Amino acid sequence: MTLQHPPATSAERVAALRGRLAQSGLAACLVPTADPHLSEYLPDHWAARTWLSGFDGSAGSLLVTADFAGLWTDSRYWVQAEAQLRGSGIVLMRAGAPEVPDMLDWVLAHLAHGDRIAVDGRVLDLAAARRWRSGLDGAGMALVLDQDPVGAVWSDRPALPEARVFEHLPPHACRTRADNLAAVRAAMREHGAAWHLLSSLDDIAWLLNLRGADVDYNPVFLAHALLDAEGVRLFVAPGKIDAALAARLAADGVVLRDYAALAADLAALPAGAALLVDPARVTAGTLSHVPGARRIEALNPSQLLKSVKNAAEAGNIRAAMAQDGAALCAFFAWFEAAQAAGERITEIDVDTHLSAARARRPDFVSLSFATIAGFNANGAMPHYRATDASHATIQGDGLLLIDSGGQYLGGTTDITRVVPIGTPSAEQCADYTTVLQAHIALARARFPEDTPSSVLDMLARQPLWRRGLDYGHGTGHGVGYFLNVHEGPQSISVRGHARPHQGMKAGMLTSNEPGLYRDGHWGIRIENLVLAVPVERTEFGTFLAFETVTLCPIDTRCIVQERLSADEIAWLNTYHAQVRDRLLPLVDGAARDWLLERTEPL
Amino acid sequence: MTLQHPPATSAERVAALRGRLAQSGLAACLVPTADPHLSEYLPDHWAARTWLSGFDGSAGSLLVTADFAGLWTDSRYWVQAEAQLRGSGIVLMRAGAPEVPDMLDWVLAHLAHGDRIAVDGRVLDLAAARRWRSGLDGAGMALVLDQDPVGAVWSDRPALPEARVFEHLPPHACRTRADNLAAVRAAMREHGAAWHLLSSLDDIAWLLNLRGADVDYNPVFLAHALLDAEGVRLFVAPGKIDAALAARLAADGVVLRDYAALAADLAALPAGAALLVDPARVTAGTLSHVPGARRIEALNPSQLLKSVKNAAEAGNIRAAMAQDGAALCAFFAWFEAAQAAGERITEIDVDTHLSAARARRPDFVSLSFATIAGFNANGAMPHYRATDASHATIQGDGLLLIDSGGQYLGGTTDITRVVPIGTPSAEQCADYTTVLQAHIALARARFPEDTPSSVLDMLARQPLWRRGLDYGHGTGHGVGYFLNVHEGPQSISVRGHARPHQGMKAGMLTSNEPGLYRDGHWGIRIENLVLAVPVERTEFGTFLAFETVTLCPIDTRCIVQERLSADEIAWLNTYHAQVRDRLLPLVDGAARDWLLERTEPL
Repeated sequence: MTLQHPPATSAERVAALRGRLAQSGLAACLVPTADPHLSEYLPDHWAARTWLSGFDGSAGSLLVTADFAGLWTDSRYWVQAEAQLRGSGIVLMRAGAPEVPDMLDWVLAHLAHGDRIAVDGRVLDLAAARRWRSGLDGAGMALVLDQDPVGAVWSDRPALPEARVFEHLPPHACRTRADNLAAVRAAMREHGAAWHLLSSLDDIAWLLNLRGADVDYNPVFLAHALLDAEGVRLFVAPGKIDAALAARLAADGVVLRDYAALAADLAALPAGAALLVDPARVTAGTLSHVPGARRIEALNPSQLLKSVKNAAEAGNIRAAMAQDGAALCAFFAWFEAAQAAGERITEIDVDTHLSAARARRPDFVSLSFATIAGFNANGAMPHYRATDASHATIQGDGLLLIDSGGQYLGGTTDITRVVPIGTPSAEQCADYTTVLQAHIALARARFPEDTPSSVLDMLARQPLWRRGLDYGHGTGHGVGYFLNVHEGPQSISVRGHARPHQGMKAGMLTSNEPGLYRDGHWGIRIENLVLAVPVERTEFGTFLAFETVTLCPIDTRCIVQERLSADEIAWLNTYHAQVRDRLLPLVDGAARDWLLERTEPL
Repeated sequence: MTLQHPPATSAERVAALRGRLAQSGLAACLVPTADPHLSEYLPDHWAARTWLSGFDGSAGSLLVTADFAGLWTDSRYWVQAEAQLRGSGIVLMRAGAPEVPDMLDWVLAHLAHGDRIAVDGRVLDLAAARRWRSGLDGAGMALVLDQDPVGAVWSDRPALPEARVFEHLPPHACRTRADNLAAVRAAMREHGAAWHLLSSLDDIAWLLNLRGADVDYNPVFLAHALLDAEGVRLFVAPGKIDAALAARLAADGVVLRDYAALAADLAALPAGAALLVDPARVTAGTLSHVPGARRIEALNPSQLLKSVKNAAEAGNIRAAMAQDGAALCAFFAWFEAAQAAGERITEIDVDTHLSAARARRPDFVSLSFATIAGFNANGAMPHYRATDASHATIQGDGLLLIDSGGQYLGGTTDITRVVPIGTPSAEQCADYTTVLQAHIALARARFPEDTPSSVLDMLARQPLWRRGLDYGHGTGHGVGYFLNVHEGPQSISVRGHARPHQGMKAGMLTSNEPGLYRDGHWGIRIENLVLAVPVERTEFGTFLAFETVTLCPIDTRCIVQERLSADEIAWLNTYHAQVRDRLLPLVDGAARDWLLERTEPL
């Protein structure tokens, strides 16, 4: 079948894919949500699952066989996927529901000995490739990684993004490229590695003090990097880096190579070369080009190095937080006045006004993620996003949850606040107070350096668990320095243990965001960023505490004060005194009045 | 060299071993502390490291080469090992000290390409064998597992113990052998295993409702077990099981085989047989006999099954705890009266009198471990044991720590109390109060079922960490049911993460034992056993709490009351009211008076 024009609907696209599978002797095609860099945000070029299915949530995998097409996605997206898949012929597979098999198990149950299953190996992470290969091997099926049947029928596939790469410069950049390279090379020597391949974009951006704009929210650019003891080959599309920057890079031993030249360069590595790779941060397809190397698998050294902010970075982060807090003061002053005046305000308006307030602050670059503004039931969906087609007007009684953040040259912010609308119920106030207690418990933590980050979550959970409550996400993720708002390797998450268990280090910047979600009713999350700082050295070790660096009032109108201990009230009053002190020089007019009112002590 | 008589000193024994190594072309011999069952307590037959070195601590590994002999042991044993190694020519290698290499690293640095290193594979766990093999392979050295050079020179090696095996019967046994076997076989089917090999003695004792007395403290017997879907082969020395018991076992499909027949039976397994083994609970030597089987590696299913006590067991445990508490009342009444009368009491006397008090209680079988009675500086050593040659008299001012426990037919106990002697210092009282707060924090925990046990430790640590204090051991270990006082798979330990992370289940019995050790000065530990019980089911899950089942007053004379919160005081008063209520029917005379005085509310 020759296509005269690109298939226009999901049904047509799936049909075209099935034709291709039949031509190639393939029984099925798995389409994950991933790119060759295993990024959180994908360029449109790699959004194959969305193109085929019409479902545009951030997570999900599609499986197409000759007579079945199913989309596996988790509970966050069931409502959205059901709507977007309508008419496509694609079955929604509710991943995590008790009766729904895992995709591999489905394949093992429904396909036959000898069947060949294709996945574009360029976007399949190594761990998933191993799991699939091991499962299929046992059933006499084969995993085919070197074909791209979707690409073969996707005739109007978008090109790769071509945004310019720029240098992160002092005073915002607080480490030299040479220092970063020396630190990574020291780690390579410890691992006995002569070479090190990086595909993860935040690692590459950090390592080389470069930033880009190839995807939304994360200031990164599409590239791979290959290091040895002397040089770096940076694989990046020609034209993204200008001659002046190329010369500066060359001075640090960084040689530019075409983005597409990686495969040939990897194939030319010396036989037996010791190559350090992070199995969670390279794809099976990329590694298929290095059959001769001896692979040493470990966390990318840059993951830990960039998670620990130095003193100069911490200073810039504090300044960025003050600018971000000033933007929030301006926004909330407008919001409360507009509410009081009876203006009709939607969740979309919240996003618009808040983004505009941030954009007015110095050194602002972009949002760090899509604003979540959810009123009542919408706030109960932790990853809700209001759209033009579907959003709420903020009116009546209840709780409005706003989770937002910005990219500044001197730091990345991420903050969640919940504010009362009209008269919230007693249950809403009780829940709000419990989440605040969880937040304060973690904010007040003291712990020895190298305490596994996962166990700190216990402090935030205990006030909720004591009331029979819980929330389904982690309490803290690492945050980059004018980089990705989600980064590792630490993770304050009681269940989602990071592997290996990362100890907390002084200088790590992490979110503190306990929540509570009453499905269909309301959601609460209170989030600040916290910096681990040393406070005491005793015979028992070096002890760290968290400095809360986010600066914005935590609304006190929903607090059930008699539920708070004296220690909790003292923490909140001290925090509000600091917020007032730090933000007052940056605000005026209505924003100043709002700041003064909302930082009154309890 | 032919030995006329067994070598009598460590120096002679090491010399004899070196002769053997030279004859066999071996460059070195590693002597771990282990037996073929990887037990905590070893029969003398397997105490090769002690026989060679003279060091009789419970942990340590010896390495002997032609010109070096070193004993690696951790900080608990440095003082003892230094004394016991004197004159042996064996170097104390302080494991864990920054400058001391790991034994494998030492071997890699000091031995040469082509060297052969022997370890008795019969006692080497699979994980260690893998680590050694992988390390030595890279350096061109060989690991030899099928020779026992120590045994070759150990002419007066003790025989294996021959204690009789007895049956654990109702009403103390609360499950049938048939039920246990069915539950393990269900787990085997889930793993796709046709066979299951057990070498761990507590697993075997639990599975078959049998108990023994081959080692101190743990009521187990030397055996291996091999299960398939219909039968069990129990490999045990002839004569340990009498004919009547053998007949009862046969009715449940249990066939007796000679302890030494295991190797041949394993070798005769069908080629490709799917054999379930726990890599932490079988040795490399044992598995060397099953080259043809397909190994499925997982935690022994009985580990989780026996950790969850059923309702009838919980009832018996509560009764055993009351008997144990009554014994402690009698002991403390004697102790305080004797102190008041000015009698000279040593740490040894504490052990003697306390053990005697326990022995008078119904259904008492033995101690569950060697009593730790440590006054002041001796209490600062968490694994201290007073000996005839070295112990303290309890006089002057300070703190006495007593950690003790008993085996009863209806349960195993483990309790630590600290009592003031004379007038303790303000610092001692502050420390005592902090440890009590840690204990109460964990005792009051609420958490969803399947919360990883490791993270609960955070609750106990926080009161200590807030003061810059810490302790080097875990906070909670599982406890068997008239079985080993230390069992898994749960572990309340912030750093020593069990693998895989075991979720907490209703019915698990675990210790709650935070501590604080001021090296050279004093030690504090407050330990009760706690049973996980369901308390609430909400839309967010099933929530568990701990029922404290140990019954004995926690001394209130060292408490700095103003440091305690109202919740903490309420917990302690409620606990003491329960202790008084439950123990009063079991005590009289001085013990009754003591109980009433020590359970007065704060």
